[in-house]
Amino acid sequence: MLLDQTLLPQQVVYSRLEDERQVAEAIKALKVRGAPAIGMAAAFGLVLAFRRLLAERGDEVSLAEVLARLEEAGVLLAATRPTAVNLSWAIRRLLGCARQLAGAGCRPGDLGRRLLEEAQAIAAEDRAACLRMGRYGEALIADGDQLLTHCNTGILATAGWGTALAPMYLAHRAGKRIHVFVDETRPVLQGARLTAWELQQEGVPFTLITDNMAGYFMRRGRIAAVFVGADRIAANGDVANKIGTYSLAVLAQAHGIPFYVVAPCSTIDLDLPSGEEIPIEQRDPREVTAIRGISIAPDGISVANPAFDVTPHTYISAIITERGVARAPYSVALRGLCADDHHPIEKQAER
Amino acid sequence: MLLDQTLLPQQVVYSRLEDERQVAEAIKALKVRGAPAIGMAAAFGLVLAFRRLLAERGDEVSLAEVLARLEEAGVLLAATRPTAVNLSWAIRRLLGCARQLAGAGCRPGDLGRRLLEEAQAIAAEDRAACLRMGRYGEALIADGDQLLTHCNTGILATAGWGTALAPMYLAHRAGKRIHVFVDETRPVLQGARLTAWELQQEGVPFTLITDNMAGYFMRRGRIAAVFVGADRIAANGDVANKIGTYSLAVLAQAHGIPFYVVAPCSTIDLDLPSGEEIPIEQRDPREVTAIRGISIAPDGISVANPAFDVTPHTYISAIITERGVARAPYSVALRGLCADDHHPIEKQAER
Repeated sequence: MLLDQTLLPQQVVYSRLEDERQVAEAIKALKVRGAPAIGMAAAFGLVLAFRRLLAERGDEVSLAEVLARLEEAGVLLAATRPTAVNLSWAIRRLLGCARQLAGAGCRPGDLGRRLLEEAQAIAAEDRAACLRMGRYGEALIADGDQLLTHCNTGILATAGWGTALAPMYLAHRAGKRIHVFVDETRPVLQGARLTAWELQQEGVPFTLITDNMAGYFMRRGRIAAVFVGADRIAANGDVANKIGTYSLAVLAQAHGIPFYVVAPCSTIDLDLPSGEEIPIEQRDPREVTAIRGISIAPDGISVANPAFDVTPHTYISAIITERGVARAPYSVALRGLCADDHHPIEKQAER
Repeated sequence: MLLDQTLLPQQVVYSRLEDERQVAEAIKALKVRGAPAIGMAAAFGLVLAFRRLLAERGDEVSLAEVLARLEEAGVLLAATRPTAVNLSWAIRRLLGCARQLAGAGCRPGDLGRRLLEEAQAIAAEDRAACLRMGRYGEALIADGDQLLTHCNTGILATAGWGTALAPMYLAHRAGKRIHVFVDETRPVLQGARLTAWELQQEGVPFTLITDNMAGYFMRRGRIAAVFVGADRIAANGDVANKIGTYSLAVLAQAHGIPFYVVAPCSTIDLDLPSGEEIPIEQRDPREVTAIRGISIAPDGISVANPAFDVTPHTYISAIITERGVARAPYSVALRGLCADDHHPIEKQAER
């Protein structure tokens, strides 16, 4: 069951996805979005791919067929959105699990059960990671702070409290009187449609603004810190995130405002030396020229629609992960967080 | 006859305004917008106020009644939008003219004709000023330049080629191969609806972008200069303009990109020492939460909608007026341009 995020906040509609092709379509159409959430969706998509094969072939199915089908489904799902690395991370994790089980001579039925468990484990780990990121981030928020966020990085984007929104939810629940400025986040309006809806549900005080108002409120001294999520973090700390993030980072630096990126370690891609190598998804121009099917620009014009931008690490005050808070030099800090599965800070957060 | 800009680009509808109250409503509702255009609309609004009085009172009307009605209409029209100074400038100019004529014992009928001539003179001067600003600005554009603009500052905002768009139109007509990145300009979408429509009509190559993409294209080295208009310029060169302008100026400076403000001298308000004193119009939150009547956010939320922001003069490379190009120190340069009605640069431009 998937909550169709394209219909929020006007309609709350859940739909049942039957196979990996429907999952791929849902990811492409942004019915599910947010880097951790699309990773989880892809993991469950592989489970559905296995089930479809089992329904077609029954008990006759061979392990080789299972692996071939999963690989095929993995290619389909990975191709849906190129920028967020959690997607390929989750797919690799399930394929690795399947190969290991097949190598050990596991029966296809058991393999299916184990795949489901692995997908569920990803979701459970994400939920726990959100809580830890939330705790690290909350420590950076003072009573009375006004904060700024971009896009949607909360309950709708993860299995838990979110990434960049988690510190705000935890600060609010801890009784800190915070106020959140929510960028509407053109063109898809994840801020106006999703973040505003989430914060309203949870009773966190906020003000919706258009993206181009951020500088106005920063200059008036109204913003204590900016919290954003990430779709991919390069080894040097450069961050790909929703279009507009880079502009916010430049503005934050110009105003001396801390700029925090909150993301699980699955978002870190140590294979990429810098953000220059991160592929930027170019989406349909109609996302810019029409809103809910209503045209807002002349027909037949040239439109750009890069879905993400890259913020160089020099603009980032800290990267908050479930294993601790990384600060410059990021090339050292991020490698440290990723290398050590039992990082001391992580243990501390688990208490 | 007024082109209703709220319906562009889908519908081209002209409506006939009968009196100053309809003009005031049209300005408030943004049917006519753009600092020079609302100044002209207010001037013609005063002519209509005079005509309404004449229709009510006939030849019996006294000069005192005429002046009282015009003062009253001036108050009504000036209150429609607080930020742009061209509005009060045009009203002051017509009221000054009326007082002078009344003082000289002019007959009411003649006074009405002279008011119409004065309003027409404002329009003619604006047309000429656009051409001069266009020439000064065009000199700053090289063949092959990619430029960025915000809001609408062209044919729809003035009686001529516009303010910030005039240099682009003139460069295009001079055969320079320019390309314009057009900010859509949330919330009212003057860029997507009006600037895109204008540039398309004139055949100037352009790409529509959302406001939050400007930094992305600047970083990729795609922008040679930013041209924006102004709603009010303080004595020190601080500029009030459409919300989002300040963020663009900070981004331009961070990327070493020239940031030009183009506006007629009627936009300069020497009475205000700095931009801190410029009143910022706060508009209806529904401009942010609904687009063409379609809701894009949850109901009952808090929304900010400042229509303008102030860009400190330190971010501005030059202010281009019809009397020449002012550069820092602006307090000296702007006073010089405003003081001298026969500025040498102006004569040069008139050739």
